[in-house]
Amino acid sequence: MFLSDILDYISILGCFTFSISGAITAMRKNLDVFGIIVISFVTAVGGGTLRDTLLTDKEVFWLTSADTVYYILAGSIAAMVFRKQLWRIKYPLLIFDAIGLGLFSITGVQIGLDHGLHFVNCLILGAITGSFGGVIRDILVNEIPVIFQKEVYATIALIGGALYLVLSYLNVVNPWLQIIPILTIISLRLIVIFYKIPFPKVKGHTHQL
Amino acid sequence: MFLSDILDYISILGCFTFSISGAITAMRKNLDVFGIIVISFVTAVGGGTLRDTLLTDKEVFWLTSADTVYYILAGSIAAMVFRKQLWRIKYPLLIFDAIGLGLFSITGVQIGLDHGLHFVNCLILGAITGSFGGVIRDILVNEIPVIFQKEVYATIALIGGALYLVLSYLNVVNPWLQIIPILTIISLRLIVIFYKIPFPKVKGHTHQL
Amino acid sequence: MFLSDILDYISILGCFTFSISGAITAMRKNLDVFGIIVISFVTAVGGGTLRDTLLTDKEVFWLTSADTVYYILAGSIAAMVFRKQLWRIKYPLLIFDAIGLGLFSITGVQIGLDHGLHFVNCLILGAITGSFGGVIRDILVNEIPVIFQKEVYATIALIGGALYLVLSYLNVVNPWLQIIPILTIISLRLIVIFYKIPFPKVKGHTHQL
Repeated sequence: MFLSDILDYISILGCFTFSISGAITAMRKNLDVFGIIVISFVTAVGGGTLRDTLLTDKEVFWLTSADTVYYILAGSIAAMVFRKQLWRIKYPLLIFDAIGLGLFSITGVQIGLDHGLHFVNCLILGAITGSFGGVIRDILVNEIPVIFQKEVYATIALIGGALYLVLSYLNVVNPWLQIIPILTIISLRLIVIFYKIPFPKVKGHTHQL
Repeated sequence: MFLSDILDYISILGCFTFSISGAITAMRKNLDVFGIIVISFVTAVGGGTLRDTLLTDKEVFWLTSADTVYYILAGSIAAMVFRKQLWRIKYPLLIFDAIGLGLFSITGVQIGLDHGLHFVNCLILGAITGSFGGVIRDILVNEIPVIFQKEVYATIALIGGALYLVLSYLNVVNPWLQIIPILTIISLRLIVIFYKIPFPKVKGHTHQL
Repeated sequence: MFLSDILDYISILGCFTFSISGAITAMRKNLDVFGIIVISFVTAVGGGTLRDTLLTDKEVFWLTSADTVYYILAGSIAAMVFRKQLWRIKYPLLIFDAIGLGLFSITGVQIGLDHGLHFVNCLILGAITGSFGGVIRDILVNEIPVIFQKEVYATIALIGGALYLVLSYLNVVNPWLQIIPILTIISLRLIVIFYKIPFPKVKGHTHQL
């Protein structure tokens, strides 16, 4: 019961943040209100939906109640209403993305463990849960699939998932069992982002010399 | 039994019309006979297949018998044989598309209700059933996903689905329970199409002046 | 037990060869190590995953143990290590592709029969198992979906599948029941490839005259 509550809470936060991330991508593509909501929805539930579809007896998480739909709508509408504030905050898309990646990946690993899967398959489920929503989002807005970035993305999800499995093996309990890998994923993702961002600028300056 | 017969009948008609719609798209892309059949198939079953995959215990509708496959083949072959007649009738693709959208969306909502889902999730299942075949079709023929159009598409499916839920709540029975929302979707879709079509023409004339 | 062993064996070989085929495509696109592994994985399990997802009660084959993941990793790493040798062997991608197509298509038909499906649906499941991994691979590396090739691809899968059904109807037993259609598919695929390859060369010469 308690574990399931935590899982629900993680899913809600993840859906909300991924929804905002999807909405920002959609607004950058100048889609209208409904398009923004659709991309928000796909980004938020895409990974978890694939995970639940792969597991034979698992209900698709957002179909069992209307709550997830409402949280996604809330995230999407919040992103639209506060769009000007979002632009002012630099890299909000990437930060929300990092939070969603951490939350979703660990939920995926945990659900794999709950289904008695081999740890290798748990790691893959975690990476799918964390990154597949973004893959579908990119395909739908017709962006070139940023495979190179996605790999870093998925690699970070795998590292976080492996850390979760190790902590679980060492009998570390909640909330640390979840908090440590989630924060690790968020930190790694943000480090990768901020390490990469000055890099092209330097190259740009070199070209202008 | 009777309701299930009606559902089967709707599925057959929807498959046939979506198959023709898919075949026309494929012929426009100059695909060969087998390619036309494949795109017909994907357009016809894509939405319902995603719906059935999302529902844990639901068999994928076209796998339980060979009938659906035959109806799609019939639609695809009819479109190829009468292709010259189809070109002569203006906008046949869009009209068949509208019929398919109406038939499929309402089936999706109904199946959601049969599975005891929340009305919000029923509406989403309806929209997925009605519009996802076309999304896969567009991805496969490498067209830029017409998200903006799709949204109108999905919005109409949602309006029709909501009307179905309201009529169902008011104890309206079949056949009107199904006919009214289906005709509403078809009408709205055709109104949107014919409202849009003269618009670029006027712009075109302006450019030529 | 014995049949299931053969099925497992076919799956392993198919995964290994499709994994190499995926890795070669990914290396041609200059993806990094992790990207190559991801594309290998998707190419190897994409078709079978869709098949298992469509069948309501079927577990997704690569989730039940870690073995498939290891075979794919082995294929992917082998392709990377022996990449220079692979380039020297002409058309390795296409030959591995042909083997994978034969192995996977027949497994798909067989699983359809095991689930008591109509022969038409078994043929479609076979074609999906054989060709869908390549379709997802192409979408992910943003290549124009080679629908025309895919059709030949799927047509060959359908011919091999039909041959399997005919042999099964004539009470031909294993291993011939599986070997004959698999070799037929591989042969047809290679004939199509080598028939096609000199064709553009002749046209090229004509243009140069």
